[in-house]
Amino acid sequence: MKILVANLGSTSFKYRLFELPDAGAPDGGETELARGGVERIGAPESRVYATATVPGHAPVKLEAVQAVPDHGVALEAALAQLTAPGGALGSVGEVAAVGFKAVHGGRYSGVVRVDDDVLAAMDEMAEVAPAHNPPYVKAMRTVRQRLVGVPLVAAFETAFHATIPPRNGLYAVPTAWVEEHHVKRYGFHGASHRYVATRLLALVPRRPLRAVSCHLGGSSSVCWLHDGTSVGTSMGMSPQSGLPQNNRAGDLDPFAILHVARRTGRDFADLLAELSGRAGLAGMSGTSGDMRDLEEAAAAGSSRARTAIDVYVASVRHWLGAGIVELGGLDAVAFAGGIGENAPTIRAAVLTGLTDLGIAVDPAANTAPAGGERSIHAGTSRVDVWVIPTNEELVVARQTRECLSGGGG
Amino acid sequence: MKILVANLGSTSFKYRLFELPDAGAPDGGETELARGGVERIGAPESRVYATATVPGHAPVKLEAVQAVPDHGVALEAALAQLTAPGGALGSVGEVAAVGFKAVHGGRYSGVVRVDDDVLAAMDEMAEVAPAHNPPYVKAMRTVRQRLVGVPLVAAFETAFHATIPPRNGLYAVPTAWVEEHHVKRYGFHGASHRYVATRLLALVPRRPLRAVSCHLGGSSSVCWLHDGTSVGTSMGMSPQSGLPQNNRAGDLDPFAILHVARRTGRDFADLLAELSGRAGLAGMSGTSGDMRDLEEAAAAGSSRARTAIDVYVASVRHWLGAGIVELGGLDAVAFAGGIGENAPTIRAAVLTGLTDLGIAVDPAANTAPAGGERSIHAGTSRVDVWVIPTNEELVVARQTRECLSGGGG
Repeated sequence: MKILVANLGSTSFKYRLFELPDAGAPDGGETELARGGVERIGAPESRVYATATVPGHAPVKLEAVQAVPDHGVALEAALAQLTAPGGALGSVGEVAAVGFKAVHGGRYSGVVRVDDDVLAAMDEMAEVAPAHNPPYVKAMRTVRQRLVGVPLVAAFETAFHATIPPRNGLYAVPTAWVEEHHVKRYGFHGASHRYVATRLLALVPRRPLRAVSCHLGGSSSVCWLHDGTSVGTSMGMSPQSGLPQNNRAGDLDPFAILHVARRTGRDFADLLAELSGRAGLAGMSGTSGDMRDLEEAAAAGSSRARTAIDVYVASVRHWLGAGIVELGGLDAVAFAGGIGENAPTIRAAVLTGLTDLGIAVDPAANTAPAGGERSIHAGTSRVDVWVIPTNEELVVARQTRECLSGGGG
Repeated sequence: MKILVANLGSTSFKYRLFELPDAGAPDGGETELARGGVERIGAPESRVYATATVPGHAPVKLEAVQAVPDHGVALEAALAQLTAPGGALGSVGEVAAVGFKAVHGGRYSGVVRVDDDVLAAMDEMAEVAPAHNPPYVKAMRTVRQRLVGVPLVAAFETAFHATIPPRNGLYAVPTAWVEEHHVKRYGFHGASHRYVATRLLALVPRRPLRAVSCHLGGSSSVCWLHDGTSVGTSMGMSPQSGLPQNNRAGDLDPFAILHVARRTGRDFADLLAELSGRAGLAGMSGTSGDMRDLEEAAAAGSSRARTAIDVYVASVRHWLGAGIVELGGLDAVAFAGGIGENAPTIRAAVLTGLTDLGIAVDPAANTAPAGGERSIHAGTSRVDVWVIPTNEELVVARQTRECLSGGGG
């Protein structure tokens, strides 16, 4: 079964095409047939690119420049490229479904067929996930108009966190906020944490397995895992909460916003927009929200870049510690995401000084040239420490398959 | 040196009168001479009460009913009661200073003589500490008008947290929010955490002493202590953040407020007022914010009361765990405050299941009839667990003395 997994940005479209065994088969029998995307959607000229990896053949790189006015046309262009000679598809009809890594469904979670009500529910969360939901809903609408006959499936990032118990999932707000307005800690990065959870269960034999998954990247979150199940996570109601993000604030006392509003005369919506796009690592440093830039700037003596890194690391450690007490101890820590997989200094900083808690990183393993999935703990460490290159698209492909076969996520 | 420490509520006034040795003397030589207060300030009839404890005499209880229109008159009435025959004071002139346990000074912290600018700074934080600053500022103004000649000193609850490093004290907001608008994690309950820190250093010989102080009461916070110094705390910019409070929300994603605002048409100030007075334990339970009521209701089958308790306990555990990683391990935990000192079930719940972290409570010691300062850890526990009846007023008295002698707080 071929499933295309779509990852939508406001002016970009990325995908991976998988061949999956039938529903119910054990994980691991999947093949990635192609990956690609479209850049600069809406510009006069867009770049349409793909790398096809048909088994038994050398990878084939394809590239075209053409007008791509919207995400519907982007998906058509990608499919045209995939069905051209040398592509990974014989015909568009081979695609059993398109799965979307969707962010915030509000009253919808799990994995669902995209219909008008699902899109309406995503619209209701537009201001809660301003960087994600509006472009996603718009793109999904155009794809839906263009790609008639192919099932569209939304796999919400919140789904993996449906198992979080009320003690870790509720804010201390009036019951009406919960019951009428769906205010709670939703959690995000569900596909990545699910992938990491599955891999940790395969890699670390202890049961119960008490683990903390650190998805650190352009946006970051920590997830507490009990035998592979989420029991808590750092992102809450919105993707602007939890750890500092590249340009989003992370956890913040709402009364700080009231205070700035009163002092500046600015309104809340304006201040929240600033917190959604000009805060986080970029806001603290005043320059870049990219960890590579910050490490370079800090090394060159920028105290603001140093502070931004320190706050970020302290926040990861905060949620790691909170997870250790929730789990009653720790058996494994995993790092995934752009920073988690590629920034040994950040991994080392997150776990420094924790030998009393049985956590010790092997410096040589940690700083060895980046490879694939690997352990980096010292021989003396009671706690396993793993770097796990995440594969959110594969998780969404599996979930999409389960949805087609009538199962849940 | 006699110092009167005042604790102001919107319609109440409570005080303790201490005799202290001169500045620079070691702690412990203080005597409490009297305690008392005034209830129902502003009502036609107010109750003025005191218990004088002159050394060598049996405690003397005094009570009067009279009109007390404001906090200035309240302090006068209290001093009149204290200087009456059988009272603890020969004359008002014996009072070297009045110390106020003040909450949020914004650009002022530490311990300072009260002047117009200090009161203005507290006014600037009125909307950040709506339950505390407005009544406090009003009361301090009337006391200042009435009690000419007696130095007034404000000991801010934030002072103890001045040692928190930037990594734990900054939000990931734009630098202008920090530099121009003083947005940061201030922390509160400073007098209580300072008292606990001092006692732990005396009680537990390990150095460095890595400890977590849990001040649990009508309002609650957790403080991480490195050799008696605050390196992090759960309350942030405002006293509405951190753990759930009796009727205040604690940590909450600001985008949840935006969401409710959009759905209900209510404005932010209105929603923040709800979060400041009708949220927290009271909001979650829908009935009471008092832990004794909640434990009774939960025992009688109320699932909302049960959930409120569970969220509260999980939040204490969250901040405990975060502290353990910040400190790189743990040597002691202390419980103080109305709940911390008197609710063995909450203490047990906070520390349950943590034997892998070296924390074990002795059930018999924990549930023994409440006494004074006592350890409740099991013999097998690597971590000391103490119940420490806090004495915020004594800390403020000491700080007031140091301020008079020109020292800091």
